[in-house]
Amino acid sequence: MFESAKLKHHVSKAVYRREEAKLREALLDAQYDLKEQRRFSVLILIAGVEGAGKDETVNLLNEWMDPRHIHTYGFFEPSDEERERPEHWRFWRALPPKGEIGIFFGAWHTMPIIRRVMDEISMGDFERAIEEIQGLEKMLCDEGVLLLKYWFHLSKSQQGKRLEALQADARTRWRVTALDWKYFKLYDRFIKVCDRFLRETSTGEAPWIVVPGADPHFRALTVGQHLLASLRERLDEKPPKRLPDKTPPLAAPSDRLNVLSALALDQPMTKAQYQKELEKWQGRLNLASRDPRFQSTSMVAVFEGTDGAGKGGAIRRVTSALDARWYDNIPVAAPTEEERAQPYLWRFWRHLPRHGHFAFFDRSWYGRVLVERIEGLCSEADWMRAYKEINDFENLLHRHGIVVVKFWLAISKDEQLRRFKRRQRIPFKRFKITAEDWRNRKKWEAYENAVCDMVDRTSTNVLPWTLVEANNKYHARIKVLRTLCHAMDAALERSPKKSAGNR
Amino acid sequence: MFESAKLKHHVSKAVYRREEAKLREALLDAQYDLKEQRRFSVLILIAGVEGAGKDETVNLLNEWMDPRHIHTYGFFEPSDEERERPEHWRFWRALPPKGEIGIFFGAWHTMPIIRRVMDEISMGDFERAIEEIQGLEKMLCDEGVLLLKYWFHLSKSQQGKRLEALQADARTRWRVTALDWKYFKLYDRFIKVCDRFLRETSTGEAPWIVVPGADPHFRALTVGQHLLASLRERLDEKPPKRLPDKTPPLAAPSDRLNVLSALALDQPMTKAQYQKELEKWQGRLNLASRDPRFQSTSMVAVFEGTDGAGKGGAIRRVTSALDARWYDNIPVAAPTEEERAQPYLWRFWRHLPRHGHFAFFDRSWYGRVLVERIEGLCSEADWMRAYKEINDFENLLHRHGIVVVKFWLAISKDEQLRRFKRRQRIPFKRFKITAEDWRNRKKWEAYENAVCDMVDRTSTNVLPWTLVEANNKYHARIKVLRTLCHAMDAALERSPKKSAGNR
Repeated sequence: MFESAKLKHHVSKAVYRREEAKLREALLDAQYDLKEQRRFSVLILIAGVEGAGKDETVNLLNEWMDPRHIHTYGFFEPSDEERERPEHWRFWRALPPKGEIGIFFGAWHTMPIIRRVMDEISMGDFERAIEEIQGLEKMLCDEGVLLLKYWFHLSKSQQGKRLEALQADARTRWRVTALDWKYFKLYDRFIKVCDRFLRETSTGEAPWIVVPGADPHFRALTVGQHLLASLRERLDEKPPKRLPDKTPPLAAPSDRLNVLSALALDQPMTKAQYQKELEKWQGRLNLASRDPRFQSTSMVAVFEGTDGAGKGGAIRRVTSALDARWYDNIPVAAPTEEERAQPYLWRFWRHLPRHGHFAFFDRSWYGRVLVERIEGLCSEADWMRAYKEINDFENLLHRHGIVVVKFWLAISKDEQLRRFKRRQRIPFKRFKITAEDWRNRKKWEAYENAVCDMVDRTSTNVLPWTLVEANNKYHARIKVLRTLCHAMDAALERSPKKSAGNR
Repeated sequence: MFESAKLKHHVSKAVYRREEAKLREALLDAQYDLKEQRRFSVLILIAGVEGAGKDETVNLLNEWMDPRHIHTYGFFEPSDEERERPEHWRFWRALPPKGEIGIFFGAWHTMPIIRRVMDEISMGDFERAIEEIQGLEKMLCDEGVLLLKYWFHLSKSQQGKRLEALQADARTRWRVTALDWKYFKLYDRFIKVCDRFLRETSTGEAPWIVVPGADPHFRALTVGQHLLASLRERLDEKPPKRLPDKTPPLAAPSDRLNVLSALALDQPMTKAQYQKELEKWQGRLNLASRDPRFQSTSMVAVFEGTDGAGKGGAIRRVTSALDARWYDNIPVAAPTEEERAQPYLWRFWRHLPRHGHFAFFDRSWYGRVLVERIEGLCSEADWMRAYKEINDFENLLHRHGIVVVKFWLAISKDEQLRRFKRRQRIPFKRFKITAEDWRNRKKWEAYENAVCDMVDRTSTNVLPWTLVEANNKYHARIKVLRTLCHAMDAALERSPKKSAGNR
């Protein structure tokens, strides 16, 4: 991967001055076109060998273009806040919206590479990190992000000379740390690991561009000219109206038996039974939420279900058992303008809870394979790839130790009609029923198909769906509470006890 | 992944008869349209739980359609021939050409799953196998193959009942082996491994379709109707003329210094020196080829280079050192009709050597990123993804222990002109120079860029390119021979001694 980078590249000062002047103007033009079009965002990853001019190049880019629309992030040690979320969380937080440029100085590649070089993770863990990165980058490209990955390179002798030069100069001595020399000793191993990493994460849509870092003029022109060419290519392209459909259809059961139709929706429970059970399970949930071990994990619960199935009511019975400081209720409706400027999972990543907190999603990322699929708000290719994207997403949460619980609240078509009519009769409930609810009801079958596909494709061994028979609200609420309690208990048993709480 | 499959699906005999009659006719129609269009091939993977009706369904498909255009393969224990090639080799051999249907009964998924269930491979190896499969399947889909993956499922109790029923009947008793019962005991672990496998290899373009296997009518209709819908969707689609360009450009160095221009093409070597060296290195290569340890590996050498750089001459100096029974010379020109009906790597997979054999490729798979790129014989997206596909391919060879060596023979533009002119003068060499050679010469710069991109993106730590300065033929030939000898020596040292040769 580094053949060209080993050469002694050189650009003279005169050539550089001439080229730089042209480049700046053209880059600024392109940046404004990007801003104007607002069709896609640009994400620039800066990676590579220490001392190869990464900082300098990032500064140059900000100098050449309008820095108000460039967002530069350096990802070093994660903060407390960040450590309590999955590793990718801080990158999602920092994604540039459409029309803007993000520069990630060190990103998702840094930790896996360094930890593998230091032998802190096994080959298997390294491979898994690569797989997660492949999934993330593919998703970003599929979502239209222009992902540019620059790898700044120095040969071993070049790096040695560079570090010595920095150290010899009183003005730059502070930049060379003991860690730099420690890494320098590991150069060969570092390159071996990087070689593999670059090979496995260089794809047609997001190839690594290796930038020889020894000559400042050369590396600046290399990055600048490549950035310009990439921007212009995408900006000047008229996106074709119709994309080829490369996804086969999914299968619907020929006998109409499915996970929903197989449910016995009417489950018995009297009001008296309910009140007894409610007290019991709310008490248990409250107790679990105060367990010190919950301070090293958190819970994400997803509530999906038929219109009128009682999602809100069930959530209220859960939250009323909890201290209001420790949970967040996230009602999911149409995305805001800010959210539409990002990949669709972005608006869910931003709500991931800290340790010791709960996040209750009233509707969720599953909208992608439900309403967006049915209403044609995204293409078939988009929702077909979403099953894997969602599984990957939830798996990151799970691997981070977050307790993930997913409920589908199901009622029958008749029961829905009864509830809709009652809502219309009762004045203070009338706001809960809209023309859209009646329209959705006409698409009952399409929704049923979509729900069954969703359950089949995203109910996994570790992250199963809980289907809740909800014709009887009492039964539904108790089943939800009981499931959450069991999930909490299991998680607490796995979780190490934290000596000092962070509340 | 198996929620729906656990339900008690059932289709009555009457419904089945009616539906099957319609289905057969429509499937046959679709198959003939496929044959007529010859636009894509169909590859059906059959996987899942033992006893879930895999055999029966495969037989049905052959019964319903024209079996002359269906190629069914069962992949059980690999043969001797197959074991001497990388694991994927036997699948490549069996790929259906455009217009035809291939059914793979057990395929690349089988061994990783079973070996992981049996704890014969680590989680890391399992992840690596998944990554290789993801790469293979993505490549097939990108090459236009309609890849349909059916997973036949039974719950644990259904499987137990099924095995007992087969055993109770004298006519089917032979079908139940001790191994089946052994696997049955591992059911829960098996499902856990499969759940993960299916989740990680279900993509938008190649989702797993889980088929509940307990009811024969139901499962037959499920597969038949899904196959039909998938075929029709692809057959009836008019491929859009223009695809969106989602690949950024690559970077060319602004100072014109590159891995080719950095070479000192004129290397000294007199005829006398050459003859001495030739004898020495040919002797060593011959000796190495007779080493018993070479019987547990093989060699693949790729010769690429400028027109007129002396690839053929260099290969002849290598082969004249070897016993003609143990090597194969593969000159690569435009693909044949049979080869054009397959993914582009297919014609190279078929030539992989057995143990103890050499394969010398005079031009190779690198045509994809050289001539095909420059002449626009494939789209930009196609050659951009090829770098990773080629790296993945060579890595499979390398991981299988095959010695892979890659040469680029480079001559200067002036030297090429001299050689072209001489070829035209010498009658017996005139056939070696065509109008195409002169045309290619006009694209010298485009080729130079493409070669540099190729070297940068496919020269890896384990599989580097050897750049050969070839203005002096003597030097070039000796460098080739010496490099091969060193590669052989290193490989033999790694290779275990085989007690009995297989010659």
